[in-house]
Amino acid sequence: MVLQKAKEYKKNRKPTEELKGKTFVMIFFNPSTRTRNSFAIAMIELGGFPLFFEAEKTWLGQQSESPKDTAKVLSRYAAGIGIRIFPNITKWKYGASNQLLQEIAKWSDVPLINLEDDLYHPCQALTDIFTIREKKKKLEGKKFLLSWAYHPKPLPVSVPNSTVLTMTRFGLDVTLLHPKGFELDSKILTMAKENAKESGGSFEIVNSLEEGYQDADIVYVKSWGSLKYYGSFKEEKQLRVPYRKIWICDENKMELTKKDSIFMHCLPIRRNIVATDGVIDGSHSVVYDQAENRLHVQKAILLKLLK
Amino acid sequence: MVLQKAKEYKKNRKPTEELKGKTFVMIFFNPSTRTRNSFAIAMIELGGFPLFFEAEKTWLGQQSESPKDTAKVLSRYAAGIGIRIFPNITKWKYGASNQLLQEIAKWSDVPLINLEDDLYHPCQALTDIFTIREKKKKLEGKKFLLSWAYHPKPLPVSVPNSTVLTMTRFGLDVTLLHPKGFELDSKILTMAKENAKESGGSFEIVNSLEEGYQDADIVYVKSWGSLKYYGSFKEEKQLRVPYRKIWICDENKMELTKKDSIFMHCLPIRRNIVATDGVIDGSHSVVYDQAENRLHVQKAILLKLLK
Amino acid sequence: MVLQKAKEYKKNRKPTEELKGKTFVMIFFNPSTRTRNSFAIAMIELGGFPLFFEAEKTWLGQQSESPKDTAKVLSRYAAGIGIRIFPNITKWKYGASNQLLQEIAKWSDVPLINLEDDLYHPCQALTDIFTIREKKKKLEGKKFLLSWAYHPKPLPVSVPNSTVLTMTRFGLDVTLLHPKGFELDSKILTMAKENAKESGGSFEIVNSLEEGYQDADIVYVKSWGSLKYYGSFKEEKQLRVPYRKIWICDENKMELTKKDSIFMHCLPIRRNIVATDGVIDGSHSVVYDQAENRLHVQKAILLKLLK
Repeated sequence: MVLQKAKEYKKNRKPTEELKGKTFVMIFFNPSTRTRNSFAIAMIELGGFPLFFEAEKTWLGQQSESPKDTAKVLSRYAAGIGIRIFPNITKWKYGASNQLLQEIAKWSDVPLINLEDDLYHPCQALTDIFTIREKKKKLEGKKFLLSWAYHPKPLPVSVPNSTVLTMTRFGLDVTLLHPKGFELDSKILTMAKENAKESGGSFEIVNSLEEGYQDADIVYVKSWGSLKYYGSFKEEKQLRVPYRKIWICDENKMELTKKDSIFMHCLPIRRNIVATDGVIDGSHSVVYDQAENRLHVQKAILLKLLK
Repeated sequence: MVLQKAKEYKKNRKPTEELKGKTFVMIFFNPSTRTRNSFAIAMIELGGFPLFFEAEKTWLGQQSESPKDTAKVLSRYAAGIGIRIFPNITKWKYGASNQLLQEIAKWSDVPLINLEDDLYHPCQALTDIFTIREKKKKLEGKKFLLSWAYHPKPLPVSVPNSTVLTMTRFGLDVTLLHPKGFELDSKILTMAKENAKESGGSFEIVNSLEEGYQDADIVYVKSWGSLKYYGSFKEEKQLRVPYRKIWICDENKMELTKKDSIFMHCLPIRRNIVATDGVIDGSHSVVYDQAENRLHVQKAILLKLLK
Repeated sequence: MVLQKAKEYKKNRKPTEELKGKTFVMIFFNPSTRTRNSFAIAMIELGGFPLFFEAEKTWLGQQSESPKDTAKVLSRYAAGIGIRIFPNITKWKYGASNQLLQEIAKWSDVPLINLEDDLYHPCQALTDIFTIREKKKKLEGKKFLLSWAYHPKPLPVSVPNSTVLTMTRFGLDVTLLHPKGFELDSKILTMAKENAKESGGSFEIVNSLEEGYQDADIVYVKSWGSLKYYGSFKEEKQLRVPYRKIWICDENKMELTKKDSIFMHCLPIRRNIVATDGVIDGSHSVVYDQAENRLHVQKAILLKLLK
């Protein structure tokens, strides 16, 4: 339903009054470009109003107010609340940012939308399904590769987690590719396997670049930090650095994929580190459509939740 | 009139177009949750537009522009200006933040709304009257207790000042309760006495917790720093710390009050330091209604001033 | 056309729906008062929506995303993009902030508006023409003085550059006045001379205060740093400091100008350093009208570019 509505919104971007007088309050503990702009403009184009606050300018962010009180009060004012909170905010205690978000959701009397925390980035993953459908029509039987890549900083596992959970749920043949040491949370992997079973898709994990890229329909590249040394930056870096040059997504690797394969990334991307300019700007790449679709899908999400 | 209009707005939250095309520009020198969101959403629901700026991102906040020039220029653009400025911005020189706000008001050709300075928080106090009327119907003959409480930081006197001035003006029987050394400004106390005289209410200051809480209809708890050591953080702390455990508002103290008494706080509140969870989440507490009412009352204020 | 439309907007400030459903996204690397508020309120009064982001809260500002990717993605969401970026952001490498802005413009599929970079401030200059026409009716034969003044910090050359280029293009008789060592970029000066030739105006550079102020119709005072020591703060300061008291725009200097001369400044202005209170608040001064006109002119700019 949401994806169907999103398709309609994309076909016709004419502003509506569907959320007239409604406000969506977003609190950002961390930077944002796509999420912030696409949610804001989604609200605007639905006739509603986006408000955003840097967390450190609120009493919640100043740790002077409980999540409960902030949630209870904002619920009195706004039609919905959005939160972005990365692992650094809760000192890289695994899952702690998600817990804070859950605590706010628990007390909120209006819908709370996860704008990416330390474990999940659900609106990105739902948009990614929309983009794959747009480009590939059918999802069944399509090989979806999620490949790890090197990045100068240890990034959260939110995008890979949401990606494997969502792609397996929608029946894709999901291949997770990463070097040893970059395993995702075993609970996530278990859920992904169950999803694949239920949906009729598949889920496999490989460490070989050739095996991963071979005949892929969709190549999704993303860096994440090793959970083995989560929050231990020095050790984690030592594990990550050796893979720097080998794991970049380049034209040679894309040659292994299907001729009409698509290259995806949630952005921002470090050019020529995560993927080469040749790939990002090349014929396989759909990264700007993917970013644009955030707008259309989130309009449908906001309509569903805030109406 | 404002309170009557606020009541109507609360009864019917349907968005209007009463402030269509009008902008309310808010400059925040300090964090905010309720003030910022409630004023923003008030403007939105009246069909107007809220803008807010972190002071440090403006030339005024950068001390590169005079209050006069900022006021004169913003007056050309906006229908109203709001300022929040706490004591730390003017280095705890008593009243200096209020003076800066007055300077801006002096030069502004549009209404300036005090969003809390170092001396006053008038929109909070007006809302508090609204909430008391909502809960208690009549104000006459009601015992209003404003009790000091411990807080890990020395807080400004803006809320207690505005509270005693407003409650006495509206004819309540006001009891101000605090330990020795936490006296409010004598000019404020004199004004409060005069207000009580004129309005037919009363005003007394007590130091005994039992005496203060006994038979109260309304319990308003709030911490503030000692004016004796205003800006001398070390000395002030030594005075404050011994009262830490005794002055918390807990169920035992609430037992002394009327059965149908209400517990109020402007929020944010340090839970189990200023008041216990039992009180904040208990049957006397009206803190979330009180926070919600900021929205309705400020809609009426904005309509009156910006229309 | 833009200036004519601006005149209409000034005559009738009634909000319109001309940019309904359209969003203007502004990214600020630096503080702002007039630019931010006037563009925001311009969008609002045209029925559109302004969004602004502190650059450091975006991936572009965090240097985690290329200008290309940010430009491409924002183009998918917004009807226009605005950027403010001063020299400090690119470490006072002459022209580097303008280059970054040009890079974004190059990849953007929607209009990009320069909200002041290290080389230019075009919206200010266009508004200044509007203000001069408003006050002086005809531009031909009017002596426009741009005088340097001392300021405690080395300011960018954006305003003087845009001022001499624009005033010469519109046919004014432009006198550029500054102490030795504060020459503008020779390319700018060459362009200004060519502009004057084409427009029928004139362009001269003088170092004598008397000569500069004598019989001026318009006095525009502005400080800028010496290009000789651009980014070398210590040396630049030594060059600047000796001119501190002599170069202030005061009543004595204004006495040399035409009786009906006007005093202009883009604001913010350091009072009694760049110009005296007597001048800023005096009968020649049009600084608040000049600031107000930003709103009207930018409404016309936004209509032209975003419609």
